[in-house]
Amino acid sequence: MDPYVGLMKAVILRICPDARIVDLTHAVPAQDVVAAAIALESTIGYFPKDSIHIAVVDPGVGGVRHPIAIQTESGIYVGPDNGLFTVVLTHESRLAAVSLDRPQYHCQPVSHTFHGRDIFAPVAAHLAQGVPLEQIGSPIDHLATIPIPQPQLNENTMTVHVIRVDHFGNLITDLTAEQFRRWTSRVPGSTMMLTLGCVQIPGLSLTFSDVAEGQPIAYFGSGGRLEVAVRNGDASQQLQASQGATLRLTLTGD
Amino acid sequence: MDPYVGLMKAVILRICPDARIVDLTHAVPAQDVVAAAIALESTIGYFPKDSIHIAVVDPGVGGVRHPIAIQTESGIYVGPDNGLFTVVLTHESRLAAVSLDRPQYHCQPVSHTFHGRDIFAPVAAHLAQGVPLEQIGSPIDHLATIPIPQPQLNENTMTVHVIRVDHFGNLITDLTAEQFRRWTSRVPGSTMMLTLGCVQIPGLSLTFSDVAEGQPIAYFGSGGRLEVAVRNGDASQQLQASQGATLRLTLTGD
Amino acid sequence: MDPYVGLMKAVILRICPDARIVDLTHAVPAQDVVAAAIALESTIGYFPKDSIHIAVVDPGVGGVRHPIAIQTESGIYVGPDNGLFTVVLTHESRLAAVSLDRPQYHCQPVSHTFHGRDIFAPVAAHLAQGVPLEQIGSPIDHLATIPIPQPQLNENTMTVHVIRVDHFGNLITDLTAEQFRRWTSRVPGSTMMLTLGCVQIPGLSLTFSDVAEGQPIAYFGSGGRLEVAVRNGDASQQLQASQGATLRLTLTGD
Repeated sequence: MDPYVGLMKAVILRICPDARIVDLTHAVPAQDVVAAAIALESTIGYFPKDSIHIAVVDPGVGGVRHPIAIQTESGIYVGPDNGLFTVVLTHESRLAAVSLDRPQYHCQPVSHTFHGRDIFAPVAAHLAQGVPLEQIGSPIDHLATIPIPQPQLNENTMTVHVIRVDHFGNLITDLTAEQFRRWTSRVPGSTMMLTLGCVQIPGLSLTFSDVAEGQPIAYFGSGGRLEVAVRNGDASQQLQASQGATLRLTLTGD
Repeated sequence: MDPYVGLMKAVILRICPDARIVDLTHAVPAQDVVAAAIALESTIGYFPKDSIHIAVVDPGVGGVRHPIAIQTESGIYVGPDNGLFTVVLTHESRLAAVSLDRPQYHCQPVSHTFHGRDIFAPVAAHLAQGVPLEQIGSPIDHLATIPIPQPQLNENTMTVHVIRVDHFGNLITDLTAEQFRRWTSRVPGSTMMLTLGCVQIPGLSLTFSDVAEGQPIAYFGSGGRLEVAVRNGDASQQLQASQGATLRLTLTGD
Repeated sequence: MDPYVGLMKAVILRICPDARIVDLTHAVPAQDVVAAAIALESTIGYFPKDSIHIAVVDPGVGGVRHPIAIQTESGIYVGPDNGLFTVVLTHESRLAAVSLDRPQYHCQPVSHTFHGRDIFAPVAAHLAQGVPLEQIGSPIDHLATIPIPQPQLNENTMTVHVIRVDHFGNLITDLTAEQFRRWTSRVPGSTMMLTLGCVQIPGLSLTFSDVAEGQPIAYFGSGGRLEVAVRNGDASQQLQASQGATLRLTLTGD
């Protein structure tokens, strides 16, 4: 890890010495705002409700995009207004949003390439210290959003996309359990076949031990999305699939 | 790092806001329960005695293996009952052990693939908050154990195994200083030669500066086991040895 | 990450349970004392003034080099006396320095290969607990220093060196903004051209969005040094440059 994250933590602790800091992930591919938006979804329901989430995937740093903070029911999100919070805001109501335009809450001088250290960390620390959101910046109405991969539905087939490969090599897709339930409920008693390249995986499993070692398996993962793994193996390597790969689901009536 | 570890910390802090959390290692190869069992040995004697250790190398997650917690003299160990604590329990007496079968201490709903977040983290946090071990689960008698690599002794030669390669490329073996002392004491005044592939290393050194730059060196490391390094180099690359490699020790009488 | 860092934190928390611990970086190449000395520069001005910095890039561990602690205006630095603090001490006055020669502040027995765990971590924790520097070791006068890469100036050209490649692939050089300002001020109204291999970058930019996607850009980074990046790309890969690469700056009169 570069010193960048440590410097942000130093800035936070200088302002808010009692802050508890948790690293969510540093594995988002560089500049990949979509992947970061999806990673932030995992915080919902697990972090304390008064958490302040800092997200810095920020290819437009120093340009025209605003630095922002957004209050939702599950905490405050601080980062650049580049669509990073698109997925969070499909789950959570936005209660308030501000543009971070008040220099007294930033580290001066503010660099042109590291707003994580100079704006987002100090703002988050001041919020943690109790500065109200409406005091830390000016209200902002419009927030940027970005297109997030979505399953494509064609009658009895569905195309889903790998949106993340975790460090086990498990393939995490854009299909949620709720979307799947609605789709299959149209054909009661149907069975599902998943195809990835030349590999066919029949039906859904609950957990890894439902298949033999080295066998591929499809299941709804701990983040609520369809995943493909290889038991005790690396699905990404074995099935030669990476971020952006497509899987086809076929529904066969009873 | 994937969001998995951060989610476990979020769950811990929601239950026990004052918990101090230390990451021991995230470099255990995926599904390698033996490597994890050995990594846990390093905690003994260095962590505070009231530490709660969470270990999640858990290929059988969601299957029949129990989630457990074990009390020893050096703390409480929480994780799957798959042999992960085999090495710790060769050093430490087991004072109590429970099966984690009480849903009120878990995050509901419990997923089938991430007991780290849904069982082990919340249980550890409740223990840190003061819930007694006997309340957090039902007593369990039998604990799973796994075979751990052991040096093989044949008269005046010994075969030892590389059980871990650290990020310096140092090769850490399964031979402890105590085992070595007992072996050499049978031949007073003997000298030892270590052979790894075509490379011969005469005798033991105390520290890296005992040999010239780029030279291989054998010594007992900070974890109490025989290690092979290359001074200011990467032994794993230079000697082309990785986890599972065997070294031969030969003892020559005076 | 190997267990080494976690063990140091365990030792710190056993002695000083309230210590707040921040990881600055674990990405310094093995044994690269120069890179570590430069990484420590980034702490100045951002960490709280009462911070205790532990630095363990320590190829001479167990040999003749002293373990030391140095008090400056920006905190206390603890580590081996191998030049690791050379860059910090060009910015900060040394207020006091001690050799860590008092075993009662170390973890016994002290290993020959891991002074991070056995000397530096416990000493830092005792300092954090309030033990005065003059009590933790004996005064030491001479401190080791190492040569740090410096820009080479020849009339209207300058050769600068890549001292670090960050995980974005950005190239960080040894040229500071202050050195650059002094150099260019000799030729008022001059323009600068930067050459790296076959690539020419005209002038300085403020931030990434000043150039088109995929284009190289030169700017003074958040650490105050000249950097070369590729907008939304990896400069190290695209320009095939790594640590030690040289860049040429040419100044043209008006």
